[in-house]
Amino acid sequence: MAQKPSIPKGTRDFNPEQVAKRNYIFNTIKSQFKTFGFQPIETPSFENSDTLMGKYGEEGDRLIFKILNSGDYLSKVNDEEYAGKDSNKITAKISEKALRYDLTVPFARYVVQHQNDIDFPFKRYQMQPVWRADRPQKGRFREFYQCDADVVGSDSLWQEVEFIQLYDNVFTALGLKGTTIKINNRKILSGIAEVIGASDKLIDFTVALDKLDKIGEEKVKEEMLGKGISQSGIDKLQPLFSLTGDFNSQIESLKDILSTSEEGKKGIEELDFINKAISELDLKTANLQLDVTLARGLNYYTGAIFEVSAPQGVKMGSIGGGGRYADLTGVFGLKNVSGVGISFGLDRIYLVLEELGLFPETIAKSTEVLFINFGDAEALFSLKAIKYLRETGINAELYPDKITNGKHMKKQMNYANKRNIPFVVLVGEEEMNKNSYTLKNMKSGEQNKVELKELISLLKN
Amino acid sequence: MAQKPSIPKGTRDFNPEQVAKRNYIFNTIKSQFKTFGFQPIETPSFENSDTLMGKYGEEGDRLIFKILNSGDYLSKVNDEEYAGKDSNKITAKISEKALRYDLTVPFARYVVQHQNDIDFPFKRYQMQPVWRADRPQKGRFREFYQCDADVVGSDSLWQEVEFIQLYDNVFTALGLKGTTIKINNRKILSGIAEVIGASDKLIDFTVALDKLDKIGEEKVKEEMLGKGISQSGIDKLQPLFSLTGDFNSQIESLKDILSTSEEGKKGIEELDFINKAISELDLKTANLQLDVTLARGLNYYTGAIFEVSAPQGVKMGSIGGGGRYADLTGVFGLKNVSGVGISFGLDRIYLVLEELGLFPETIAKSTEVLFINFGDAEALFSLKAIKYLRETGINAELYPDKITNGKHMKKQMNYANKRNIPFVVLVGEEEMNKNSYTLKNMKSGEQNKVELKELISLLKN
Repeated sequence: MAQKPSIPKGTRDFNPEQVAKRNYIFNTIKSQFKTFGFQPIETPSFENSDTLMGKYGEEGDRLIFKILNSGDYLSKVNDEEYAGKDSNKITAKISEKALRYDLTVPFARYVVQHQNDIDFPFKRYQMQPVWRADRPQKGRFREFYQCDADVVGSDSLWQEVEFIQLYDNVFTALGLKGTTIKINNRKILSGIAEVIGASDKLIDFTVALDKLDKIGEEKVKEEMLGKGISQSGIDKLQPLFSLTGDFNSQIESLKDILSTSEEGKKGIEELDFINKAISELDLKTANLQLDVTLARGLNYYTGAIFEVSAPQGVKMGSIGGGGRYADLTGVFGLKNVSGVGISFGLDRIYLVLEELGLFPETIAKSTEVLFINFGDAEALFSLKAIKYLRETGINAELYPDKITNGKHMKKQMNYANKRNIPFVVLVGEEEMNKNSYTLKNMKSGEQNKVELKELISLLKN
Repeated sequence: MAQKPSIPKGTRDFNPEQVAKRNYIFNTIKSQFKTFGFQPIETPSFENSDTLMGKYGEEGDRLIFKILNSGDYLSKVNDEEYAGKDSNKITAKISEKALRYDLTVPFARYVVQHQNDIDFPFKRYQMQPVWRADRPQKGRFREFYQCDADVVGSDSLWQEVEFIQLYDNVFTALGLKGTTIKINNRKILSGIAEVIGASDKLIDFTVALDKLDKIGEEKVKEEMLGKGISQSGIDKLQPLFSLTGDFNSQIESLKDILSTSEEGKKGIEELDFINKAISELDLKTANLQLDVTLARGLNYYTGAIFEVSAPQGVKMGSIGGGGRYADLTGVFGLKNVSGVGISFGLDRIYLVLEELGLFPETIAKSTEVLFINFGDAEALFSLKAIKYLRETGINAELYPDKITNGKHMKKQMNYANKRNIPFVVLVGEEEMNKNSYTLKNMKSGEQNKVELKELISLLKN
């Protein structure tokens, strides 16, 4: 009857060390979110299907995990519909709930539902798992955490400035120096499309431009031609491909290129504002870079677009991203609420910290001292000491099984070694008589007979 | 097109204050788990259906949330099966994954799957949500957190002793004094059933006995009679109904009642060992009480059974429970691994702390100071100060939108008031010229013009 145990593909178990490392990242991010004034909310793991469906495009709808209704769910499908045996049509009849696909749509739903209890501008953060029925592959999972911070209810550009500072603070706190925060603006992309006469092909245009890094200039131009963008339009793009220099000089070039587009000029103005503020405020370890090819799920964003890449030399996709969306909550009936937010890619940050050896050593530390169990009387004597140790915040354990006939002593020592417990305490008859404890340093092998007070102070250091 | 937003019944949104209060409970429990040497693990939100199905009885199977397969899932149902339109039969064909129903079965699966990487005895804790398609009612939700600590790989009774200390420590740390930790032993229940000649009716017998508190002695006897337990057997129960006195004197009475049952005597011995150890070690604020009527999902437990009730005067079901199960992992192919564990009922603990006013006031604190935004130059000046404040760990915000034509000042002050932000800083032209900040205490109305250094030290206190 025994089953060979396994877990669904694309999901993961996390062992104690992995949980500790993940929590280190979560806690670092959370602590920065708090100093910036963000407040936590949590939403249910599953939402009503109509809250989620239709919000992520056709592919998104496909990738949403649907939950089967309870009870005799087929009885709600009429015979005619049932006879069709059409999975797509029947899904809506037998499933009313679906697992969260991201944190943005549930957040929008939350804001609208609780609008009367919220003081705007509302700065919220949220760190919860999301689920996607994507094909699992290296670094892509079906269950993964998102860590988002957003502000809704203000279109002030100071928020973009603060989000750049927030990225800088978090990555600096994680010891990850030299990240690049790339920024663009949807209005720049619209402006370019306008200038080259391809406003109606904005998405095709940006999808192609987004690939510049990967496939190079020629292929990008080919793709644009293929999508029906004119040769003369593409010629006008030439200066874009050769944009060089620092943020300011790129801004100057863009002013030339976009001189005829009102929207483009607005985008330049916004970028310029943000860049000037950041120059005055200084970043700690990150670099701010203008990247006119940056698009990311363009449909979302209406203003700033962000993406963070790991320090040079680390091969890894973006470790964060975000941007501004002018109408986050409209689909749920609350119009004209502007939002801007950023997200941290936990799994990728984890891999980068691992690769660069940036996790602090103390993370692995759990139990500090193990009391060897020589018998019931000794165990009780030990537990009295352990009680005090724990009260002072020392993580202490008694080995549960006693040594019988002198056996199992090695087993207990091995347990301490394997678990990386740095100290063991030995309590035998002699120690009990003298009300003392023999403390053994597992690394050096050194042993000391000490009283409780000394034991505590030695373990505290 | 706008939808009126809502969430599925039995689920909850948590606002910032609620998240902070829940985290306070989680962190208190977690911190005690750690001092006792427990290590965290996490398992996926959904498991393969065959990992979960059949583990919780028939009702459990019904209450497990099933996830619909992706793609054209109906194509895998053959026409003959399909024609039956039988929800029960078709479920297994169209759903291969299910949401976690508790943390115990996934833990057992984890232990078996990773047995070669685990150092036994394995002390693990786990705090994750679980899902049940139960009828929602007051205090019962379809998504809720479980907080479990278990040890597997040892049958030492010292673990029971330590779990009682752990309960005592957690509830004391939460300020919840005077909880009652009730303890029983499956072997006592088996012994009683044996003595009254109802060994074959152990479950009926304990289900009835479990109701003693609620329905009283007479009704319990009626129910037992109805289930086919003999009148002479029930007569033998009489001493049980009048068990009084402290732990020790109850133990003495049980010795008489169970003198003919080997299993019963073993149970008494175990309870006596635990009670004697706890008497020596002293509990801080909890009381340990023997309760021979305590059964809880009896099928699980093979030794100790625990349940914690809130301090007298608080109407609330149990706020924690647990026990020993001799064969946790057998169903997944690893035999003879004994486990013992306890669980904390987060939602009920939350309600009790709320009722008794035991949440610390500082929990609600989020942002400590808001900088009023008088304009772009002032905002930039403010952000330079905010940067330093945040570096010293002070949660600080700039109001994102600037005051235009003298308007909106009140709006910004209102925002600080509503959010309970205790201080605001005003920076105008005068302050910028003098490199100073006007700090206003929102409670007293007091205003001081200070330099950055003083600002930081005032906010630090």
